[in-house]
Amino acid sequence: MLQKIDIRFLKQPEEVGLKNPVFIEGLPGIGHVGKLVADHLVNELETVKVVEIYSHYFPPQVMVDESGTIKMPNNEIYAYKSNGNSPDLLILVGDFQSISNEGHFELVNAYIEVAKKFNVSKIYTLGGYGIGRLIEEPYVIGAANNPEMIEELKSYGVKFERGEPGGGIIGASGLLLGISKLEGIDAACLMGVTSGYMVDPKSAKAVLDVLKSMLNLDVGVEELDKRAREMEKLIAQIKEMQEATMQQWKSDEDLRYFR
Amino acid sequence: MLQKIDIRFLKQPEEVGLKNPVFIEGLPGIGHVGKLVADHLVNELETVKVVEIYSHYFPPQVMVDESGTIKMPNNEIYAYKSNGNSPDLLILVGDFQSISNEGHFELVNAYIEVAKKFNVSKIYTLGGYGIGRLIEEPYVIGAANNPEMIEELKSYGVKFERGEPGGGIIGASGLLLGISKLEGIDAACLMGVTSGYMVDPKSAKAVLDVLKSMLNLDVGVEELDKRAREMEKLIAQIKEMQEATMQQWKSDEDLRYFR
Amino acid sequence: MLQKIDIRFLKQPEEVGLKNPVFIEGLPGIGHVGKLVADHLVNELETVKVVEIYSHYFPPQVMVDESGTIKMPNNEIYAYKSNGNSPDLLILVGDFQSISNEGHFELVNAYIEVAKKFNVSKIYTLGGYGIGRLIEEPYVIGAANNPEMIEELKSYGVKFERGEPGGGIIGASGLLLGISKLEGIDAACLMGVTSGYMVDPKSAKAVLDVLKSMLNLDVGVEELDKRAREMEKLIAQIKEMQEATMQQWKSDEDLRYFR
Amino acid sequence: MLQKIDIRFLKQPEEVGLKNPVFIEGLPGIGHVGKLVADHLVNELETVKVVEIYSHYFPPQVMVDESGTIKMPNNEIYAYKSNGNSPDLLILVGDFQSISNEGHFELVNAYIEVAKKFNVSKIYTLGGYGIGRLIEEPYVIGAANNPEMIEELKSYGVKFERGEPGGGIIGASGLLLGISKLEGIDAACLMGVTSGYMVDPKSAKAVLDVLKSMLNLDVGVEELDKRAREMEKLIAQIKEMQEATMQQWKSDEDLRYFR
Repeated sequence: MLQKIDIRFLKQPEEVGLKNPVFIEGLPGIGHVGKLVADHLVNELETVKVVEIYSHYFPPQVMVDESGTIKMPNNEIYAYKSNGNSPDLLILVGDFQSISNEGHFELVNAYIEVAKKFNVSKIYTLGGYGIGRLIEEPYVIGAANNPEMIEELKSYGVKFERGEPGGGIIGASGLLLGISKLEGIDAACLMGVTSGYMVDPKSAKAVLDVLKSMLNLDVGVEELDKRAREMEKLIAQIKEMQEATMQQWKSDEDLRYFR
Repeated sequence: MLQKIDIRFLKQPEEVGLKNPVFIEGLPGIGHVGKLVADHLVNELETVKVVEIYSHYFPPQVMVDESGTIKMPNNEIYAYKSNGNSPDLLILVGDFQSISNEGHFELVNAYIEVAKKFNVSKIYTLGGYGIGRLIEEPYVIGAANNPEMIEELKSYGVKFERGEPGGGIIGASGLLLGISKLEGIDAACLMGVTSGYMVDPKSAKAVLDVLKSMLNLDVGVEELDKRAREMEKLIAQIKEMQEATMQQWKSDEDLRYFR
Repeated sequence: MLQKIDIRFLKQPEEVGLKNPVFIEGLPGIGHVGKLVADHLVNELETVKVVEIYSHYFPPQVMVDESGTIKMPNNEIYAYKSNGNSPDLLILVGDFQSISNEGHFELVNAYIEVAKKFNVSKIYTLGGYGIGRLIEEPYVIGAANNPEMIEELKSYGVKFERGEPGGGIIGASGLLLGISKLEGIDAACLMGVTSGYMVDPKSAKAVLDVLKSMLNLDVGVEELDKRAREMEKLIAQIKEMQEATMQQWKSDEDLRYFR
Repeated sequence: MLQKIDIRFLKQPEEVGLKNPVFIEGLPGIGHVGKLVADHLVNELETVKVVEIYSHYFPPQVMVDESGTIKMPNNEIYAYKSNGNSPDLLILVGDFQSISNEGHFELVNAYIEVAKKFNVSKIYTLGGYGIGRLIEEPYVIGAANNPEMIEELKSYGVKFERGEPGGGIIGASGLLLGISKLEGIDAACLMGVTSGYMVDPKSAKAVLDVLKSMLNLDVGVEELDKRAREMEKLIAQIKEMQEATMQQWKSDEDLRYFR
């Protein structure tokens, strides 16, 4: 039985023993910048998976890996217990965002419920900000749910100018800021400027640099390029196959019925 | 935790002490006539915000202002305590209407629940009636959920002729009349005739004039033009950016998945 | 407060005192054949309205009549108390069918709940069967949820041949047969063959003739033509206006947002 | 009253007395390979229908057979009590899969609930894997929710190579593997490679051959060709009619409303 929003704790907060962790979200989105950075953190730091989230709002399918083993699509939260130089972290990564409008709200409610159980002190959501052209020197623009965070972010090189992003912030990265504002949790979004045309490791590096200095994280950046190339290859391959599958599935749907 | 329909009272009805207020709705719609008038009333009169309404039926995103601070989309209800010359008012304004069909019904249920808590005596919903061409002398057409209101509205220059609007009244402005009819609350819709092509301060002025004389409101009209120009500029800017964001987001959705 | 499915009894079954009535459904559909016949019966017979059904699954709008008074879209059930020559009737008519797939099921559940409260003996659903070309001599094809009904229907000239309608019966007319089968209530669908291009009084007359002889109803057919012409005119007018409204509403939706 | 997910047990598990049956799913899908095999098993083996599943997530319509009798669309589960040479079986067949994304999850939850009531030992889901070109010698590719099953499947000739199906497995065949993994039930998907252009009895035979040897089933394959031809004819006929009906229904929807 899979609940509409199905939160499964692999470890209870008290077992994990994080101290007012910083919550970092990096789900799929524009240029996959946020996902690239968050996946990188999960892999580079000594993290442990603490929560799995399944949902009826993810696509009704499973993924198959190269060995032929399936994976149920989900989002996952990893815990990082710091050695004292940085804050503890909770990192939200995953395969999908909601494919329905209302599902976004229910999933973000769930993320915040988990965050509160772990007594998070602050939330950073990561994303890309697409400008439709290639960019030589990517930088990071920000948005926050508390004006007081803005000055601090500026001091780490995050740009706040010209009312960007004017169109708002769509999906989990945006709603996490909005709903946590109503819950009294400080949250900011870091968006790496990117063309929006491809998985962008340069933009991801810009975002990672801000995070590193802000949170005093000891994380290399060498693997970002490799990770981005793999991601790009995987996406191309899967996109092609998925399109083929979907077309056949859809043409079948026209004749779904027979006795 | 954000409820599907999340009504947050900032002040309780007894604190506010309105006496059988008139409820005025002006949400986004055709020519933004209704929103222009209602926003104007909230700004020109000495109003106080009493209710915030959030919902899973609004778009899954947040807005970002020029400073970089986000705002969770919502609808808001403001109270106006009259000095005795006019009735007290409750004014519903907001960023969005529901983006799903069923959400319209649930949100209007919520508006009427609030209205009943404040013992409203009457409801006016404001909107535009687009005719697809420019119009020199805008006028106001009406519709009511009680035939007795029609004569009164006619005496204030509201037109009821040729079965307009034949296509019915869509969204909150319509459903507020329909559901309040079932609840036994008198309600009418005032629609400023407009081209439908732009934010129309002339049409808004026509609607405002009817409201002013009907409710004996002491409100200037000078700011309507300025407000409309700002709204127009903002809409153009945001529309452009939103389109860009949505396109990237959508093209990303095609490749939402990867391991 | 309007429930998702909101059944409002204007009279209780025991007040109305029908004896195992026959339930007839005629909602909007192909060629509006079913609606034309059912509306005709409600008007020609001495009927009284006993139930109103409102729903979040109808379009989020109200209709406006020529005087400017609004009507909340609904479905209505009328009772006909026979003088003894025919069975008593319950007639379901209305403005809309569900605009969502799932809503069809919930609404038909509601219709059958009402039917059971009135102890209906049998259900006839009325519709059109479009063949895409004009037809000189319309006839009636049938489908039933109990094979035993088929012979009886054939004896009244209803055709059952060539596996028509092969594509199944969509919407309330179909689901009423399916769900009442599971409830153990006999039900059949009478479909007037029609071009499908217009409101078709000839096809409606063919359906009405079957009903009249089967149920021994004393109903004239003279008004069918006039009713069809009015319906046609109304539809043309409303369609035009509705399209205009919808277009403006939709173009507005693109710029739904502004601060 | 039809529940959203309406599971109707015609026989209780204890009456049927199956011993840790193997659950086989074959619903409509690519090339109708899965449905063809599962329908074949239901017909060739001495099976008895034990469960009917109705749902608001199936299309809102009924089917009409050649005699004029309607059928409410559903999925059905048949039980096969083995003579001891093979395991007992539960076979899921049906008219449709969910037409909404979320419905897939709720239906698969229901299938697994039934499977657990019958104490199933293992699940095989059957489908097609379309490659977009004709294939002379169809073979079967596999995916499993437990790596241990993969070696066993390989020993029966099932192929696991090149990361196929890269696009994942969509619908019930996929989610059954995913959700049963979370429930601790072993499950694998057998996909007959097929063009995807037509009902493919050759591909179905390849899948059936794997099942036969794996489960030691005594089932002929002669009828597969005939069954496929009938299915193909039926689909063509119904598709044509359904399209005609849908077009008329849709054009009617534009003018759904009138007073």
